[in-house]
Amino acid sequence: MNGARALLSTLVDAGVDVCFANPGTSEMHFVAALDDVPAMRGVLCLFEGVATGAADGYGRVAGHPAATLLHLGPGLGNGLANLHNARRARTPVVNIVGDHATYHGRYDAPLQSDIASIAGAVSGWYRSTTRADDVAADAAACVAAALGPPGCVATLVLPADSSWSESATGPCPPRPRGRPSVVPADTVDEVAKALRSGERAALLMGGSSLRADGLHAASRVAGATGAALLGETFPANLERGAGIPAVERLAYLAEMAQAQLDGVRHLVLVDAKSPVSFFAYPDKASDLVPAGCTVHTLARPGEDAAGALETLAEAVGAPADGGSPAPSERPRRPSGPLSAESLAAAVGATLPEGAIVVDEGNTSGLFVPGATAGAPRHDWLTLTGGAIGIGLPMSTGAAVAAPERPVLCLQADGSAMYTLQALWTHAREGLNVTTVVLSNRSYAILNMELQRVGADAGGPMARRLLDLTDPELDFCDLARGMGVPARRVENAEDLVTALEEGFAEPGPALIEVPL
Amino acid sequence: MNGARALLSTLVDAGVDVCFANPGTSEMHFVAALDDVPAMRGVLCLFEGVATGAADGYGRVAGHPAATLLHLGPGLGNGLANLHNARRARTPVVNIVGDHATYHGRYDAPLQSDIASIAGAVSGWYRSTTRADDVAADAAACVAAALGPPGCVATLVLPADSSWSESATGPCPPRPRGRPSVVPADTVDEVAKALRSGERAALLMGGSSLRADGLHAASRVAGATGAALLGETFPANLERGAGIPAVERLAYLAEMAQAQLDGVRHLVLVDAKSPVSFFAYPDKASDLVPAGCTVHTLARPGEDAAGALETLAEAVGAPADGGSPAPSERPRRPSGPLSAESLAAAVGATLPEGAIVVDEGNTSGLFVPGATAGAPRHDWLTLTGGAIGIGLPMSTGAAVAAPERPVLCLQADGSAMYTLQALWTHAREGLNVTTVVLSNRSYAILNMELQRVGADAGGPMARRLLDLTDPELDFCDLARGMGVPARRVENAEDLVTALEEGFAEPGPALIEVPL
Repeated sequence: MNGARALLSTLVDAGVDVCFANPGTSEMHFVAALDDVPAMRGVLCLFEGVATGAADGYGRVAGHPAATLLHLGPGLGNGLANLHNARRARTPVVNIVGDHATYHGRYDAPLQSDIASIAGAVSGWYRSTTRADDVAADAAACVAAALGPPGCVATLVLPADSSWSESATGPCPPRPRGRPSVVPADTVDEVAKALRSGERAALLMGGSSLRADGLHAASRVAGATGAALLGETFPANLERGAGIPAVERLAYLAEMAQAQLDGVRHLVLVDAKSPVSFFAYPDKASDLVPAGCTVHTLARPGEDAAGALETLAEAVGAPADGGSPAPSERPRRPSGPLSAESLAAAVGATLPEGAIVVDEGNTSGLFVPGATAGAPRHDWLTLTGGAIGIGLPMSTGAAVAAPERPVLCLQADGSAMYTLQALWTHAREGLNVTTVVLSNRSYAILNMELQRVGADAGGPMARRLLDLTDPELDFCDLARGMGVPARRVENAEDLVTALEEGFAEPGPALIEVPL
Repeated sequence: MNGARALLSTLVDAGVDVCFANPGTSEMHFVAALDDVPAMRGVLCLFEGVATGAADGYGRVAGHPAATLLHLGPGLGNGLANLHNARRARTPVVNIVGDHATYHGRYDAPLQSDIASIAGAVSGWYRSTTRADDVAADAAACVAAALGPPGCVATLVLPADSSWSESATGPCPPRPRGRPSVVPADTVDEVAKALRSGERAALLMGGSSLRADGLHAASRVAGATGAALLGETFPANLERGAGIPAVERLAYLAEMAQAQLDGVRHLVLVDAKSPVSFFAYPDKASDLVPAGCTVHTLARPGEDAAGALETLAEAVGAPADGGSPAPSERPRRPSGPLSAESLAAAVGATLPEGAIVVDEGNTSGLFVPGATAGAPRHDWLTLTGGAIGIGLPMSTGAAVAAPERPVLCLQADGSAMYTLQALWTHAREGLNVTTVVLSNRSYAILNMELQRVGADAGGPMARRLLDLTDPELDFCDLARGMGVPARRVENAEDLVTALEEGFAEPGPALIEVPL
């Protein structure tokens, strides 16, 4: 068999059986091999940023990686922003980048570029396979590296001749899956001591700690010690809803985050980074840890955060039933004009059990988390790296990973335009994604940021660069152009109905919500 | 004044008065300063690949750079593919990338990434300005580097505090513009000797040599010596049409290019690279220079290619009127079914004087160059770096650079989807761009390449990854969703009418041509 087939067989044997692809000529042997390895599902994306964002969504939901298939340096470039988000989410991604044949590189043909340099910015692991005989072993190593823990973007560059040449070795068996390392007992003891000090304390939960088991244990700790439960601002995959203890996420705005942290003397990081301002602002602090606060690290990325929290709960003498799961409650079905508040109520009133919410709602989506706190249990995926344009692609991957679960994509209009091509894949694959476009016809967050950075703002030229009204985008036309049924709603009642239909009916739908 | 205002004033003083922008928070002071420096025109793009492709088109047509404005590493990543194309075209581009404030980088906030690593793949010049006092001088150096000659992508990273802090220096005057260096006399003599040898010879014209003056001189050389006139496969900006000597472009397919070069004993490179296969293929040569052929270099990038050709024409004793300008002739207005041939005839029959043709027609556009060879004088811009998705953005920039000239964008459907957001900017800025979408509902070139690479192709999984029929894209819906009037034509007569209306009426239009 050739290198391409050995690669695909190795990936499938290691559990990587979905590939979000946007191939070109140098990837044609990989494409041809799909018919030889039918267990690999190729999902065509019309732009590389869709493929990489889908791989991020898939990895966050499945817990194991999908593959991408990108076309040389420029294809990698197109996918880079969502790989950046995946890097920040520590999502496992097997990132396959086709390249010229090894001997062709020296001719500096038009598509030649420095792939290693581009990939370096996002990759936790990188290798270029220069012989077909090495492809399978390198693929197995790539999957293992992607899985970690912690997960990472593992980039495997595949020169065309490594793909088309015969592989003497054939497929390679999967490597043993890595396991999170156990947090040392003295680390837990130190944190327990701090929490029992009587001084004001908070746990800042992030990464792998934001699933039900970690949240239950943390909630027991909070109940026993009075520590506050905070969550990182942009979680990769937060489990929440009725029956799951809630965390209060740190606010995006530094001023508000500082208020949340005010007076805390012990901040315990649980697979989370020490809090910093998202951007710098003139005369404002970047480091958000209050003066006089000691920062403790209970669990680092790749460590067993939930296990450490359970050990900690025992150490502080928390009863087994000492947690505080969120009660089951929904807002009433809203009526009347559309607003950020009625939008939030409509989602809260309709969100189904087991839903996956992909939240790139930005400013317009501000009230939705509050309105869904008591909705049936669901997952919440956010923009981890600040590179906008992930909502529609991440929904693609989430829906492929969990075809039986409804996916709700809360998508701000400005961000939607970066990777709108994902809608076509929603339609082609019949994905159960209900996309709600929050259409305020503005880069609203930048109007706010323009004031916050202290710029003498508000001149007509500046305002025009943040404005999306001339011309207005019609997301129903855009969706229909890619085969996704779409409707614009005019009031909250219509929105509730549209959401219910979107969740009930198979396949994708788009709802444009003018705000 | 602050660093942002000093930067903008310096750019405007150096003739850089258009900025294709997709800003974020770290660029807000730049945005605010636009109202202080009204000579700078900010053009909002809804995706960074639109901004960079527009800067490429602008630079190719204007001969001096536009600026971009991108948001940190992920924004640069989104713009990287079209910067790759600009690098290959040697287009002058002032590529401005906002960054976190210098002191904020160490906190590794979510958007932090290795900008230098990403930019390295496309930049001929790179600098990160760490003090507001240096911004103006660095901007002047950036413009000078971008202009070359040869032109390049010059990347200036602008940390937010360099932008918002006071600049003690204020704006910096422009640096003297670099001039192409004169080709040494003995280089011309060597080429003249080879051309007079009586052995078969060809000039391979590229880069700056493909404008009227260089083509006239080359045509005189060809007339006097019998040398063939060849053009590089993908020119940045080829001047052509009635009254301009024609060059035969080297074919994309290596087999066809080898036939064009067969028997050539002296190949003279005129601001062109020695011919190589675009991709590698099993058992096919990468280097397309025939055995026994000597390669001579008349002019390198940054040298005065047209001047060298004129000196060469004198050296080989070519009479002043010895060139062969293309005759004026147009195909008849076609009728009947739409096909690649009738499409070509429709364009040939209607192309207006002074048009700028942006050609990303790929396989479906194959016959258009032939049908327009005798059309009124026009410019022809192509995909120089193989990174598809430049047609609509490049048209944006071309139309901004030359608002009085009609722009015809020949756009293949698969490639259109990479940077479709450019249509919104066409509408917002009222650009005179007539976009013809060549809709064959396939990555047609890949179906061909699948065979050429020798893959055992044609399985249903492989074919599905190259197919755009399920669902079909409706480009009229997509265009209308972004404010561009659109129509689908059903026969050649309708296409002729639609083209004539598109060229005659101000503002953008889109014509979908099912093929």
